[in-house]
Amino acid sequence: MTNLKQQVGIKAAEFVKDGMIVGLGTGSTAYYFVQEIGRRIQEEGLNITGVTTSSGTTAQARELGIPLKSIDEVDYVDVTVDGADEVDPSFNGIKGGGGALLMEKVVASNSKDCIWIVDESKLVDCLGSFKLPVEVVQYGAQNLFRKFQTKGYNPSFRMKDGEIFVTDQVNYIIDLDLKKIQDAEKLADELDRTVGVVEHGLFIGLISKVIVGRPEGPEIIEK
Amino acid sequence: MTNLKQQVGIKAAEFVKDGMIVGLGTGSTAYYFVQEIGRRIQEEGLNITGVTTSSGTTAQARELGIPLKSIDEVDYVDVTVDGADEVDPSFNGIKGGGGALLMEKVVASNSKDCIWIVDESKLVDCLGSFKLPVEVVQYGAQNLFRKFQTKGYNPSFRMKDGEIFVTDQVNYIIDLDLKKIQDAEKLADELDRTVGVVEHGLFIGLISKVIVGRPEGPEIIEK
Repeated sequence: MTNLKQQVGIKAAEFVKDGMIVGLGTGSTAYYFVQEIGRRIQEEGLNITGVTTSSGTTAQARELGIPLKSIDEVDYVDVTVDGADEVDPSFNGIKGGGGALLMEKVVASNSKDCIWIVDESKLVDCLGSFKLPVEVVQYGAQNLFRKFQTKGYNPSFRMKDGEIFVTDQVNYIIDLDLKKIQDAEKLADELDRTVGVVEHGLFIGLISKVIVGRPEGPEIIEK
Repeated sequence: MTNLKQQVGIKAAEFVKDGMIVGLGTGSTAYYFVQEIGRRIQEEGLNITGVTTSSGTTAQARELGIPLKSIDEVDYVDVTVDGADEVDPSFNGIKGGGGALLMEKVVASNSKDCIWIVDESKLVDCLGSFKLPVEVVQYGAQNLFRKFQTKGYNPSFRMKDGEIFVTDQVNYIIDLDLKKIQDAEKLADELDRTVGVVEHGLFIGLISKVIVGRPEGPEIIEK
């Protein structure tokens, strides 16, 4: 008896073939995908190279004996499998609840194929119920925060143990509580142009396939 | 007998009035502006607050007794005076030869008024003879470098003492040798959207005034 997260993780692993360079996502759903890749290496002699999206996934992959390379050591990634916080019908989505959006986006943007694995609750008609994480440089961050306030974006600094959370790349994260993002591409463009913004959690046009966990079995949705 | 850099620095200081929050630029020309502000504080009782664009300028300003605040402690900057590496007839330009482009751009983008002080040699018909600095996150930087190579952008990592130079914000700088930038706004947009790019040295639409040092005296060009 497997749970839904495990089901989609195992299903996604079917898209991984011998010889591939594979992006290994982060989070509670991607966890099962990484476990299944480890199992296939051990039991079926699968031969792949993994590229991880966080220090957590690196630790998991090492324990499973998955050969790893840094994103900088490969020209591209064949397929990346990762979780997501929200996905809309155009396959745009929000990621970064775990604070690893920058590494996740770097790997995704270097991947020929990106698969997101989610449960039904992550499928939304309109993005924005989930707070949009924006990774910003520390210098000028308070100023950027006030700009987001003025725009009505309801910003809050990501906190950890009573301090402002610092990412792996030594930046801050400002979460925007937008409720409804009417035009995700326009907002992505605006944030891209904003001085001080390193990256944001809007993934636009990066995803080719979504695998949804359902009680009756995983469903594959293609664009 | 003052030199041209000193002349434009002193000229620019005339735009600074009592009570202003003033962005203090970085480099060999901005140096003279900062010196003049220091002189006016000491000799004329000028009352301003400075916001610096690099640790070097911070040290200079402290020595001169200029009261300083961080960009995060002010809502906006009244006027910023800084040097530049290239300026075109549309008042677009390139900055960042000194490696401080991120801080300089954060301050400029929070300024009501931006003045660049340059010598004649910095005025160009078309940007691009000066290498365009692009500040990038370390993770995935090699990959980004290869992408720039493929695009024909002739990238090189900024080096220091035989190692890749690390900025104040712990990023790398990739210099693009473009010779001629036909459409600066389009390139800025492309770089803004590129995952892994934190900022770039193209300053588009940020400058309101350029003061040019000429043997016959400083010339003020307004947009």
